[in-house]
Amino acid sequence: MYQTEERGGEHTGTYRLYLSNAQGKFLSPFHDIPLYAGETQDVFNMVVEVPRWTNAKMEIATKEPLNPIKQDVKKGKMRFVANVFPHKGYIWNYGALPQTWEDPAHTDESTGCGGDNDPIDVCEIGTKVCSRGEVIQVKVLGALALIDEGETDWKIIAINIEDPEANNFNDIDDVRRLKPGYLEASVDWFKRYKVPDGKPENKFAFNSEFKDKDFAIRVIKSTHAFWNALVTKKHSTGEINCTNTTVSSSPFLCSETDAKAIVEAVPVFAVGDSVPVNVDKWWYGKKN
Amino acid sequence: MYQTEERGGEHTGTYRLYLSNAQGKFLSPFHDIPLYAGETQDVFNMVVEVPRWTNAKMEIATKEPLNPIKQDVKKGKMRFVANVFPHKGYIWNYGALPQTWEDPAHTDESTGCGGDNDPIDVCEIGTKVCSRGEVIQVKVLGALALIDEGETDWKIIAINIEDPEANNFNDIDDVRRLKPGYLEASVDWFKRYKVPDGKPENKFAFNSEFKDKDFAIRVIKSTHAFWNALVTKKHSTGEINCTNTTVSSSPFLCSETDAKAIVEAVPVFAVGDSVPVNVDKWWYGKKN
Repeated sequence: MYQTEERGGEHTGTYRLYLSNAQGKFLSPFHDIPLYAGETQDVFNMVVEVPRWTNAKMEIATKEPLNPIKQDVKKGKMRFVANVFPHKGYIWNYGALPQTWEDPAHTDESTGCGGDNDPIDVCEIGTKVCSRGEVIQVKVLGALALIDEGETDWKIIAINIEDPEANNFNDIDDVRRLKPGYLEASVDWFKRYKVPDGKPENKFAFNSEFKDKDFAIRVIKSTHAFWNALVTKKHSTGEINCTNTTVSSSPFLCSETDAKAIVEAVPVFAVGDSVPVNVDKWWYGKKN
Repeated sequence: MYQTEERGGEHTGTYRLYLSNAQGKFLSPFHDIPLYAGETQDVFNMVVEVPRWTNAKMEIATKEPLNPIKQDVKKGKMRFVANVFPHKGYIWNYGALPQTWEDPAHTDESTGCGGDNDPIDVCEIGTKVCSRGEVIQVKVLGALALIDEGETDWKIIAINIEDPEANNFNDIDDVRRLKPGYLEASVDWFKRYKVPDGKPENKFAFNSEFKDKDFAIRVIKSTHAFWNALVTKKHSTGEINCTNTTVSSSPFLCSETDAKAIVEAVPVFAVGDSVPVNVDKWWYGKKN
């Protein structure tokens, strides 16, 4: 359904991964991929940003036209997430649900904090290691309410509908039963993953417990409504770039030609960097 | 100090990785790399067979001339070790100490079992992810007495002397203190790693506790003596191939020309296979 086009050098500031549809027409993974993958409202599209077991913090660039995937930069350096023992890199295929937005101006009633200004995050727990920029269809199973430096940052738990065991997973309790330890590991991961970078442990709402599928879908629906207000300019966009190629109700709709020009303005080739050796370090407990 | 030469196709039965010295003269990683890396008797050479976080069960082919590294085959299939949750592949750089041999005819006084007919295994706990066939120098820190299907299979715990933190690691307690959880994870890994393949959990001598550095070095010395008896034909070799290029006291010593001919008889090119998708599966608890 979707294709990817990489430009620039991997693990450098020049790297951008753009998405196009099956006909090669460029689009925004934030705004132009439908949230709902089918006619029912329980299968969602997910854009994979970080494949399981990798460390490079790749994310949809919300502030750039057509929102390519690029590597996050912290303190002038390409950001790689630390390996918090016993974990290796991200322990799920990690990504975002398109057409959602966690509104910073909206105080979440569960967490008492505003949104983090990003599309909602997803942890996909299937067996296949997906690729960066891949668009998969997922069943939503639950949600974890992370409080990341004072912002609400929901983590949706989902499974690829093409996973051989997908039929066995219909709610959060199925994860607890069939993948014992995975939910606890997920909380542990999110709690500690920024500690090696000198940040405090993250906190969670709901006593660090996972909410179920119905709750998660309600959260997604509300973030979809926030996104809709954003893309139709009923809400100020701030630094968010809403350029899109398919949302007919949006004042930020652009032509196919304009979209192509946006991508083609980005250099195709640049020298890439390898993953630095210290990314392989394992971090134990809280030590720095 | 050493170079590698790969022949055949990766992840197929044709794959062989041969070692040579700095001058390109082929040698056996089992017999020709000195056990002791320096003049003192506490730094050892280690041959890396399986880099950390990988799954392909690569090992020194003890029954082939010059003992190249090849992938183990089980039931006609290339063997990949399962990911036992929360672990990803091997959780150390895994390999062997050259010039050692766990004699099946010798009943270990600690375990009451004979040896497993292989060089002694090492788990290297440093930060760097080594490469297949790399020869590194390690400090020995301790040992775990695995009983693998009724055979004694010592696992030496060691750290690369070039690790930035190597100076802080001098005995097994330093691992417990500075890498909290790693020893427990190592026991858990060895206990469960064959369960997804339908095997029972492995057992350990000494109530699953690690022995210290001095004990480990004594075990290594005894396996070095068994190897010495083997390579000098004081002990029957059975299926073990003792062809070597440096052990002057050995009747299996061969010439540089013979060694070159052994390697050159192996096809250079063959189509490789990619790692099968199911290798990425995560296994939870004891389920199959």
